[in-house]
Amino acid sequence: MTNDPLPAELHALLGPAGVLTDPADLARYETGWRYGKGKARCVARPTTTDEVVAVLACCRRHGARVVAQGGNTGLVAASTPDASGTMVVLATERLYPTVEVDALGRTAQVGAGVLLSALQQELLPHGLWFPIDLGADPRLGGMLATNTGGTRLCRHGDVRRNVLGLEVVCGDGTVIRELTALRKNNTGLDGKQVFLGTSGAFGIITRAVLQLASLPAQRAVALIGCRDGEQVLALLQALERAGGELLSAFEVMSRNALRPALVHNERLRAPFGDALPAYAVLVELATALDRQRLDLDELLAAVLADCAHGDDAYLGAPEAFWPLRHGISEGLREEGRGLAFDLSVARSRLPALTAAVQAALAAEWPFARLCDYGHWADGGTHLVVTWRDADAPGEPEAIVAAMQQRIYDLAVRGFAGSYSAEHGVGPHNQRCYDRYVNPAVRALAAACKRHCDPEGVLGTVRLG
Amino acid sequence: MTNDPLPAELHALLGPAGVLTDPADLARYETGWRYGKGKARCVARPTTTDEVVAVLACCRRHGARVVAQGGNTGLVAASTPDASGTMVVLATERLYPTVEVDALGRTAQVGAGVLLSALQQELLPHGLWFPIDLGADPRLGGMLATNTGGTRLCRHGDVRRNVLGLEVVCGDGTVIRELTALRKNNTGLDGKQVFLGTSGAFGIITRAVLQLASLPAQRAVALIGCRDGEQVLALLQALERAGGELLSAFEVMSRNALRPALVHNERLRAPFGDALPAYAVLVELATALDRQRLDLDELLAAVLADCAHGDDAYLGAPEAFWPLRHGISEGLREEGRGLAFDLSVARSRLPALTAAVQAALAAEWPFARLCDYGHWADGGTHLVVTWRDADAPGEPEAIVAAMQQRIYDLAVRGFAGSYSAEHGVGPHNQRCYDRYVNPAVRALAAACKRHCDPEGVLGTVRLG
Repeated sequence: MTNDPLPAELHALLGPAGVLTDPADLARYETGWRYGKGKARCVARPTTTDEVVAVLACCRRHGARVVAQGGNTGLVAASTPDASGTMVVLATERLYPTVEVDALGRTAQVGAGVLLSALQQELLPHGLWFPIDLGADPRLGGMLATNTGGTRLCRHGDVRRNVLGLEVVCGDGTVIRELTALRKNNTGLDGKQVFLGTSGAFGIITRAVLQLASLPAQRAVALIGCRDGEQVLALLQALERAGGELLSAFEVMSRNALRPALVHNERLRAPFGDALPAYAVLVELATALDRQRLDLDELLAAVLADCAHGDDAYLGAPEAFWPLRHGISEGLREEGRGLAFDLSVARSRLPALTAAVQAALAAEWPFARLCDYGHWADGGTHLVVTWRDADAPGEPEAIVAAMQQRIYDLAVRGFAGSYSAEHGVGPHNQRCYDRYVNPAVRALAAACKRHCDPEGVLGTVRLG
Repeated sequence: MTNDPLPAELHALLGPAGVLTDPADLARYETGWRYGKGKARCVARPTTTDEVVAVLACCRRHGARVVAQGGNTGLVAASTPDASGTMVVLATERLYPTVEVDALGRTAQVGAGVLLSALQQELLPHGLWFPIDLGADPRLGGMLATNTGGTRLCRHGDVRRNVLGLEVVCGDGTVIRELTALRKNNTGLDGKQVFLGTSGAFGIITRAVLQLASLPAQRAVALIGCRDGEQVLALLQALERAGGELLSAFEVMSRNALRPALVHNERLRAPFGDALPAYAVLVELATALDRQRLDLDELLAAVLADCAHGDDAYLGAPEAFWPLRHGISEGLREEGRGLAFDLSVARSRLPALTAAVQAALAAEWPFARLCDYGHWADGGTHLVVTWRDADAPGEPEAIVAAMQQRIYDLAVRGFAGSYSAEHGVGPHNQRCYDRYVNPAVRALAAACKRHCDPEGVLGTVRLG
């Protein structure tokens, strides 16, 4: 596209470092972490809110659609351009990559371009952290637009619950600047909620003020074997009653999810001896109290003894057991084809949902294996269905499509669950959005879209 | 209005218990808890969502505007009709007054008509509570529409942070039914956010699913004297560092706020001897751990000793110190005229805001006294300015108007604060909404209003 006037105009606005057009430079912006592979017209890399406004104005003039991209670590293809080659990627990597900490207020103002890891690093000396714990290292703008979840959600909530202030540039160029550090501001519509978790469909998040939490002084971790899902839930209830507000993770790994991690990674060890239990549960308590005040290992041991889990419970350092949980994705990748679902239901229904999916697979796709794991305390379960193509009759694409529809239908319609517990919404699950989201909510989203982005400049997902 | 056809139609829809027209019956619906005094055309008391839809349809046909009313305990006049005598009060008191608890899931489905006290009573046997603690006893529908705060916000957040599912009837009759018990449902626009804290301007909340918390097994309370606001903040920081996630209240009472409570209520006692400190801080730790596991009184004593507050700190039973805090409103009512502000700022700026208000009063209204108290951990402060009319030159109304504008301007424009930290928005602070709310947020609210309630049937507050 050497005759394309758009990059030249962007160049005039942003300077030479602000625009990329060389195909070699574009490549890394065109492919997502798990899903999404497209072609960019060019990449714009603004450094300020005003430059974002200018980029959008320029793109509107040229009729070019724009997709915002942070760390490009999302799992629903919401940050990559489509295949048309006509979309501009607005990369936030240079957008205010700075952190301003108010230690007394326990808040931080961040730019969209800040990496999560960089934020945590800045907060460390203050004994604080932004309590969202993910496998990836996104930039804050994308993280907020995705409303990510993670392994500490049961304690601290999702991103939405930890954002105080927001600055966003709407598709029509309107800047909503509400960079307030207010924990309470009950003055009508909480406008920022419209932009959290909507994948940049209405506006591009440029800066934010975050609420911070105490960095734990101690963590106590145990791995507990359970014979079935009901026992997992009983354990959860016992922990919540006895360990209360200190529970900070409750990660459930089925035998089918854990075994591949152990098989494919020789450095991983599980303490269960010869036979893996149906479910291994990683429990973590965390506290800001120091050991002199409260011995967390002792507390966890006592709590587990009380809930009759003394025998099949193993206490260990966090670094002894967390690698098992973190090794699951990699292990499952070695198992042939893997179809992943990010579901949630009312958590008391997790065993029933899992059993129903198991039954559906046995009846219709007996060659497939259900490998489930997840954050049960918050109702989330990652179901991964694996199989070898050699064992499966028929076209893989047809199997995938039929299996997706069946399992999503089960979770959403059969169990009043969610087709996207924490990964958010993007082209990868657009069909789910269209099929399952309440039409009245879609109509409300469409009204927001018409208001914020009447020309439809923004995003790759259609909310409405 | 004996010839008014509207009550007769509502009677046909709702039955005899569903409509009130007798002026004696209407009286209690026409006057708010603190502000708001109007005249109702009639009161409709639907029992189901379908009946709410029918009432709204009937009112739209007759061109009658509707105000929803729960417990009528709000503090911004959002639940009472205006003075025109043309508005219908839609009382939610009969709307699903039942609670369904999922103890394992730690959620409860409630109807709009449930009283907060009744909900807590139902949850007691399960060792759970809805962690919003208020001076009043609202109905849940109104509480959600107001997004109330309260004394445990620093630990558990506001209402918004504890609502999982919502059913709402929009002004145009559309029912958005999302009664899901999902802690994670990241599928695009979180539609319920539009109706939480918007005072029924877009729709009437009929049912909800709430997230519950462990009822504390222990509370430890101390009252601590501080010489100034900076010392209060230092105490807060020390407590958060050492007591971490166990801090459940941090209530700050200035000398001017506490003294009238003590003077006017002989049963109240403060432990400070002859002289009250500039600030008395009520600190509460709470935990689900039992005393065998962690002695909370011991912990609080140790923490306070560490932060060099051993001398002026008094530990006591909760019932020894909470009545001081709860006695403030009543005490201040005895002090003559009282003008109340519900403000919040970034909490590190609370001493500076208080000093600035103090200086403004000294310069312009030297006869007035600043009596401040509040939830400093979440940045909230209730400023009450008191004076005797006999001491004040000029018309009281003019003084009130000038003082309001000066103090709101200071808080919102001078300190990037909020004119309504937790009481929400209604006719009482409509002028603040119009003056201070970001025009871009108002425009977004107006788009929501056009979508949800195009005929403008609902509410007494104008969001947009």
